[in-house]
Amino acid sequence: MRIQFDQQMERLHVELIRMGSLCEEGIALSAKALQEKNPAFLQRIAAVEVEIDDKEREIEDLCMRLILQQQPVARDLRFISAAMKMISDMERIGDQAADIADLAPYIVENNSQSKVHIGDMALATVKMVTDSVEAFVKTDAGLAEQVIAADDEVDGLFNQIKEELMQLIYSREIDAKASMDLLMAAKYFERIGDHAVNIAEWVEFSISGQHRKL
Amino acid sequence: MRIQFDQQMERLHVELIRMGSLCEEGIALSAKALQEKNPAFLQRIAAVEVEIDDKEREIEDLCMRLILQQQPVARDLRFISAAMKMISDMERIGDQAADIADLAPYIVENNSQSKVHIGDMALATVKMVTDSVEAFVKTDAGLAEQVIAADDEVDGLFNQIKEELMQLIYSREIDAKASMDLLMAAKYFERIGDHAVNIAEWVEFSISGQHRKL
Repeated sequence: MRIQFDQQMERLHVELIRMGSLCEEGIALSAKALQEKNPAFLQRIAAVEVEIDDKEREIEDLCMRLILQQQPVARDLRFISAAMKMISDMERIGDQAADIADLAPYIVENNSQSKVHIGDMALATVKMVTDSVEAFVKTDAGLAEQVIAADDEVDGLFNQIKEELMQLIYSREIDAKASMDLLMAAKYFERIGDHAVNIAEWVEFSISGQHRKL
Repeated sequence: MRIQFDQQMERLHVELIRMGSLCEEGIALSAKALQEKNPAFLQRIAAVEVEIDDKEREIEDLCMRLILQQQPVARDLRFISAAMKMISDMERIGDQAADIADLAPYIVENNSQSKVHIGDMALATVKMVTDSVEAFVKTDAGLAEQVIAADDEVDGLFNQIKEELMQLIYSREIDAKASMDLLMAAKYFERIGDHAVNIAEWVEFSISGQHRKL
């Protein structure tokens, strides 16, 4: 029984790492799609989103089986509950990466992405997602802490981009649709940053048993 | 044991209904805040958001205890799993209602809400949330179906508002910041509609055991 439990916990760990890597790939692709018009990026993001959704259900089933069959307690139960929360944040990161990719072609056609700091925001958010997954893989509370701190920078970039877009609208230097699409893309990146923070907070919780928001 | 189980399941049902009512109140208030500048609305929304977050944790604990202590199977386990999913959608509805309320004062100051169909979108979304909760309370698969169908209307209104905002920007008939804030508010309503659809799909799942997306 205990051996089977350890095997299932190991598998849960491996599947979470895989799902995290898919999120990293999705958001990295969405950042690329905002720099260069390339249908291959969009096709790959669509595939990644499907893989992420499948992975979420797979991990959910695994967690439910673990809880029902193995009656975990204390730290193990904490880890499984954290896993069930993390996967819904990861699933939304996949959705939002796909949403950004949908907006990208029109933005790039107008070369509007070059007029605001959306590239910086993309880079900062990709790093938050990568670090949050890394913090989980290495159970690194310090790195989780850094992800949570990095969110202020991303929120600041969102406000900056909003200001830049307003100025471009006033001065008629941007296509109106592109300005709306860029605002939405920036908002999606900001939300992805929030989900990376949630993941980092669940990493902290599974390590310490303390959740800063609870 | 069975009596205790029935009591806990009954309590889960009651708490979910309470959380649903809080969501209805939150979004109804956010719709009002977009029509009239009134600090009382904003204070109440902030309080509702806190109540919703507390309720989510309370219900989550109850579900975990039910699963661990009572080893539910089949329909009961299905209902508990659906409950755990529904509450995260409800929690996000609360967040987004608060996000809309944050944007409302500047929009109303400029009376920009009257220039686009945001009021219609608010009404349609409030109805989706109310109906999704109602469908759960009455285990009404037909009503759940209607909620899912209503999402097309809300998505259509979002695109309409985006078009209206673009025209207002071209013709300089709207404040640039208000136009951005209105686009964000419309997006939050659209997301709330998506969460109402998720709730309706979990209602269907807990009734039929079939999830249309799985």
